[in-house]
Amino acid sequence: MSERIDTLMPGRVVIQNPAFFCFGIDAVLLAHYPELRKTDNVIDLGCGCGVISLIMSAAAERPGFEKVRFTGLELQPELAEMAKRSVLRNGLAEKISIVQGDLRNCTELFQPASFTLVTCNPPYTPAGSGIVNPSDSVGIARHEICAALEDVIGAASRLLKNNGRFAMVHRPGRLAEITEKLLKWHLAPKRLRMVHPYADKNANLVLIEAVKCGRPSLKVEPPLIVYEEPGRYTGDILKIYGMLPDQTISCPEKK
Amino acid sequence: MSERIDTLMPGRVVIQNPAFFCFGIDAVLLAHYPELRKTDNVIDLGCGCGVISLIMSAAAERPGFEKVRFTGLELQPELAEMAKRSVLRNGLAEKISIVQGDLRNCTELFQPASFTLVTCNPPYTPAGSGIVNPSDSVGIARHEICAALEDVIGAASRLLKNNGRFAMVHRPGRLAEITEKLLKWHLAPKRLRMVHPYADKNANLVLIEAVKCGRPSLKVEPPLIVYEEPGRYTGDILKIYGMLPDQTISCPEKK
Repeated sequence: MSERIDTLMPGRVVIQNPAFFCFGIDAVLLAHYPELRKTDNVIDLGCGCGVISLIMSAAAERPGFEKVRFTGLELQPELAEMAKRSVLRNGLAEKISIVQGDLRNCTELFQPASFTLVTCNPPYTPAGSGIVNPSDSVGIARHEICAALEDVIGAASRLLKNNGRFAMVHRPGRLAEITEKLLKWHLAPKRLRMVHPYADKNANLVLIEAVKCGRPSLKVEPPLIVYEEPGRYTGDILKIYGMLPDQTISCPEKK
Repeated sequence: MSERIDTLMPGRVVIQNPAFFCFGIDAVLLAHYPELRKTDNVIDLGCGCGVISLIMSAAAERPGFEKVRFTGLELQPELAEMAKRSVLRNGLAEKISIVQGDLRNCTELFQPASFTLVTCNPPYTPAGSGIVNPSDSVGIARHEICAALEDVIGAASRLLKNNGRFAMVHRPGRLAEITEKLLKWHLAPKRLRMVHPYADKNANLVLIEAVKCGRPSLKVEPPLIVYEEPGRYTGDILKIYGMLPDQTISCPEKK
């Protein structure tokens, strides 16, 4: 399999290789979940092809957001290198830095408490459960081989300033454990949005935002429903995808 | 203010007194949330006028459910006495026992690990925050004066057999704390349903079911939307209320 260049939105392309993990609807939803602030310094943990920084940086192309910077940290050298080329190709080298490294050593790579927003679309499945993808690269992206849930949450907490936000997308099945680890690492869950494939189906994704040393008080936002009916997205999803061509949408689950 | 007799469903009435806390939609939703099993021994903590046991006992009027028994534990003597009269008036004395007592002493009142299902519609507001109702009785029902969240969860855990279920309704704002306390007391959250007044509004109630010593794996069920538009309930709510006359529905929040 070889590389391809996908259009992400007007003025944004992303280089992907199907031999590696390609991004899905979860990454797109996460990229739109936190509300960007003018003073933000953002890092995406396990950035893969860089899709989250590429999408979020478009929201920084507004007056007043000139100083917002994005960093993508990726363990796998091939993916980090691909992400770097995407950044260059989009002319975003001043806005987005891609760093190859292990999030478990994040405070050796970055100053602790130096970011105001951390995002992460982590592996969903604990190591040792489920079928691990035979391709190492996809296995690392899907299974907690190189980053367990607590590694991710611990890294986010160490990298965030007080009152900084941590936004993550994950499976609802692990929400109790996520909550427990967030609280342990002084990240107070503040916003939660359930993503349901259909209005009458169980959620298959959860978007969560926590604030470092925040006061505990959670808002559960309106459910995000993906499909009106098979093959037809809801208005909420079309609004998020707005400018994305259909062919880049891959869905985590079908009815 | 004086007592009134409300029709709960065909063949079920409930005695209430507006001078005390009257039940709302939250109690009705909770009563319909757990799936009753033929071998269940059920206790409702802080049962108030007994509405949850009265509603749930109707689900036990099916072949095979003859042995299911319900207990309501209520701290306030006037409410416990009113609940007892409701039980008698419905001819349910063989099915439902009302006990006056403090859930903090629950293992002096009941055998530990003797129930398979514990329900609770607890006070939502921590003691010391918000405006406490000047009527003591309503204050006790709304504020954690006599039962803090952890008292309730601790009591549920001690009363439940292994694999027994604990079903609770609460405010989403406290979901992180609820999750933390459930895990601390070996209650694994298994089912979660968000209740939204409208499809595009934040949730104002959450229904949660946890299993004692269960394996952690949470299902987030389809959102329960209360109103289609102001004054018009959704099909899901009409199905739950089915047989309840409109006048007994009080809503926790309006648009």
